[in-house]
Amino acid sequence: MSTVRIAGVGLIPFGSYGDRAGRELFAAAALAAFEDAGVEREAVDQLNYGNFMGALTEHQGHQAPLMAEAAGLSCPAITYEEACASSGAAIREAVRTIRSGEAEVILAGGMERMTTLDTGEATAALAIAADELYEVRGGVTFPSAYALMARAYFETFGGDREDLAHIAVKNHKNGAANPHAQFRKEISLERALDSPPVATPLSLYDACPISDGASAVLLVSEAFADDHDLDAPVSITGTGQGGDRLALQDRETMAETPATAAAAKEAYADAGITADDVDFAEVHDCFTIAEVMAIESLGLVEPGEGITAAREGRTTADGEIPINLSGGLKAKGHPVGASGGSQIAEVTHLLRGDHPNSDAVEDTTVGLTHSAGGTVGSAVVTVLEVEQ
Amino acid sequence: MSTVRIAGVGLIPFGSYGDRAGRELFAAAALAAFEDAGVEREAVDQLNYGNFMGALTEHQGHQAPLMAEAAGLSCPAITYEEACASSGAAIREAVRTIRSGEAEVILAGGMERMTTLDTGEATAALAIAADELYEVRGGVTFPSAYALMARAYFETFGGDREDLAHIAVKNHKNGAANPHAQFRKEISLERALDSPPVATPLSLYDACPISDGASAVLLVSEAFADDHDLDAPVSITGTGQGGDRLALQDRETMAETPATAAAAKEAYADAGITADDVDFAEVHDCFTIAEVMAIESLGLVEPGEGITAAREGRTTADGEIPINLSGGLKAKGHPVGASGGSQIAEVTHLLRGDHPNSDAVEDTTVGLTHSAGGTVGSAVVTVLEVEQ
Repeated sequence: MSTVRIAGVGLIPFGSYGDRAGRELFAAAALAAFEDAGVEREAVDQLNYGNFMGALTEHQGHQAPLMAEAAGLSCPAITYEEACASSGAAIREAVRTIRSGEAEVILAGGMERMTTLDTGEATAALAIAADELYEVRGGVTFPSAYALMARAYFETFGGDREDLAHIAVKNHKNGAANPHAQFRKEISLERALDSPPVATPLSLYDACPISDGASAVLLVSEAFADDHDLDAPVSITGTGQGGDRLALQDRETMAETPATAAAAKEAYADAGITADDVDFAEVHDCFTIAEVMAIESLGLVEPGEGITAAREGRTTADGEIPINLSGGLKAKGHPVGASGGSQIAEVTHLLRGDHPNSDAVEDTTVGLTHSAGGTVGSAVVTVLEVEQ
Repeated sequence: MSTVRIAGVGLIPFGSYGDRAGRELFAAAALAAFEDAGVEREAVDQLNYGNFMGALTEHQGHQAPLMAEAAGLSCPAITYEEACASSGAAIREAVRTIRSGEAEVILAGGMERMTTLDTGEATAALAIAADELYEVRGGVTFPSAYALMARAYFETFGGDREDLAHIAVKNHKNGAANPHAQFRKEISLERALDSPPVATPLSLYDACPISDGASAVLLVSEAFADDHDLDAPVSITGTGQGGDRLALQDRETMAETPATAAAAKEAYADAGITADDVDFAEVHDCFTIAEVMAIESLGLVEPGEGITAAREGRTTADGEIPINLSGGLKAKGHPVGASGGSQIAEVTHLLRGDHPNSDAVEDTTVGLTHSAGGTVGSAVVTVLEVEQ
């Protein structure tokens, strides 16, 4: 299977953008990607765009043609909505379209404005990623859903709040060096443990923030990269997607995430690698417990080992398999529709050696991204590799 | 380029479904498609699903995995959002994915619940397909936007309200025989002309209704159809997509729809045909004036001739090129996310000879569908052909 090259990536710092329109944010990320790539806008065949809650936060649907216009493009544009995995799905489909030969150059990414709502409103809006009939009407929001998953995990494999706090400490430490991170400060274990409860056993520092942000990735065929003599050492060599029942109550277990395992199995086979070949990963840590389940379902650690991996230093920057060197959703921020693209951009920088945390992965060749929707009712996994 | 076979199609009558959940509607359409196809659910590799305004009408996003579950599927599922062209885009991407060899069987379609809102609320919700900053805040809704387009058309090419009324009469006549149509009654020219004004020059019978509905199309590779000895005489032989500025004010003209022309050009080239080869079409007549611009931009009539085509009997069931034999969005109804898939299902029935209006297209081989988003900021065109 032919690979797809990453010609350039573009990010804006995640955070709060006041009254700026979402189109401005995506335009800025796209501009950065074009500057990084050295590719003309006229070469773009298609825009694959991810957005989740624009109908609620900006009263704006039909965003793809609007974002194409904002990015200076004149090409067909498609919006992908897969909850928190929206731009992960948009990028996976872009890879498949380029491989098929139907396009040579696709701009893919996403955007989310969230701070137009207050925290309560945003939490209610995010809940549309859960099952409205069988979860939301019963009072489930995402903090409570992940709290249920954490309790199920603790009952199945053991672990406690302090194990989770070590993940928050690790991700904040990683994010402190990242110019695109919403939170650029380290936190102490005590501070994480003393933070106010949100939904027991999860407290404030177990949760990612409400964020505005955008991401853009310029994907090209190998032939295009060669013909245009592009400096594009990083390729996407594998993708996979998995699905599950949307409502937690309909699943066999709440302590594991089979959609992630299915996506990883497909992505590894697609890339011709195994989990053992992965050197580092950006995973979907909307809550600290989500990182635990992600690295287990991805096969990066054994079942039951994810909970202590940060505490034991296995997933820290100097550990055997660094996780979320960007800061993760936890510290970098989680503008829902932008997060999947942001992960791809961060891994690209890390593999190219031009990321503030690149030293942690020097001489490595395989990075992975994992993007999940809702309580992992959907998951997208992408394998990235760099030429030596 | 290999073709993609339509193994089966499923529709439910469009209309008002009271308090039934959207998932029930899509499950019913999917069930009908599986029964029509004689294919097992286990064979499905992927669900491509279109929905536009579920966040506003059912407070439900992340619908694709939910609909997969409702349809009895265990496979990855993706939501496509392209405003009123959402399932048109979902089906186009399904065709491209099957052609690439990455999937053999894809269920594609869409669903929309709209009658959960009253007419005023639904009109406001639909407006998220327009440019919120530069159109909606200025008071533009879709009836007024299409009224502006009608005025621009009249100034450029001539025409009047009576010409438009002939289109409404034609589509109601076609819809009267369709068991899936929301309005199954003929109307007189006088009744159309006497209907109350909505946005001058458009009146009530120039507008499609607010609808609930779902559609499902089971697409398979030629190899799968052959291996399983399927009775699947209709193929999708070409697709195309075009885009335009979202806001009317940013376009060079409001009297033409270049996104449709671009989509048609690509679809015709893809299928290896010209507009002259098209025997009949389902086009996006959210308002009567939209049908006029569609058939001109598709090249089915010359520029300026679309306005009188219905009056002159060129586009009636017994005319040279029947348009909207299903009743169109005007009489069949327009559950936004379902409409593109509905058009494909209707053309499939017409080409197979098992549609109440099949007599009108006996011995023809090429049907076309045209699905548009907003004021044609995006457009998807699909060419269908039947084996003789």
